[in-house]
Amino acid sequence: MLIDFSDIEEKPLEHFKGGEGTFFARMFTDPKVKIMRGRLEHGASIGLHTHEGNSEIVFILEGKGKMLCDGKYEELSAGSCTYCPEGHEHSLINDSKGDLIFFAVVPEHH
Amino acid sequence: MLIDFSDIEEKPLEHFKGGEGTFFARMFTDPKVKIMRGRLEHGASIGLHTHEGNSEIVFILEGKGKMLCDGKYEELSAGSCTYCPEGHEHSLINDSKGDLIFFAVVPEHH
Repeated sequence: MLIDFSDIEEKPLEHFKGGEGTFFARMFTDPKVKIMRGRLEHGASIGLHTHEGNSEIVFILEGKGKMLCDGKYEELSAGSCTYCPEGHEHSLINDSKGDLIFFAVVPEHH
Repeated sequence: MLIDFSDIEEKPLEHFKGGEGTFFARMFTDPKVKIMRGRLEHGASIGLHTHEGNSEIVFILEGKGKMLCDGKYEELSAGSCTYCPEGHEHSLINDSKGDLIFFAVVPEHH
């Protein structure tokens, strides 16, 4: 099925997972998966959280930022892909001057 | 963890799932997920197959093509996202004149 993000309302999620500022997300969800187009403005972040029973795959579409994954920083830019396996933790940080826009999948592994 | 597709060899998969021509894939895999950057040349396709125990999320990066999903054609271009839930079937077809390049995730739901 097509998932047209332009047809999905962009919702503001304040201090998502304890992060800074607002995480804006257009999200499709069913019992097996979340599929989203996310946006973090300059200085915003998704707080550190552990993926229990699921994982997360992030593909950067526009902008720059960094992922803190199991204590290690990863530099991200358009085309970067980062994977947080089940049982691991990560935080996504926009420390750039522009928007950080990404495609992400959170599959349930059960 | 970063997944750098430029560090992953692009492997040719002939007549993948019974499709036409060659599917070229740079693929990361672990027991829970496959994460890939795929390429179909003009006229190539991934044959019709059903996702049993897993699903597939495809995000188009470059080019044009179509997905046949549960008997219905979906037109795809850069930025399109299509989801084949567990238990459903699909086929990806490059009926354009250029390459069709996509990012895809195949999560295991068990």
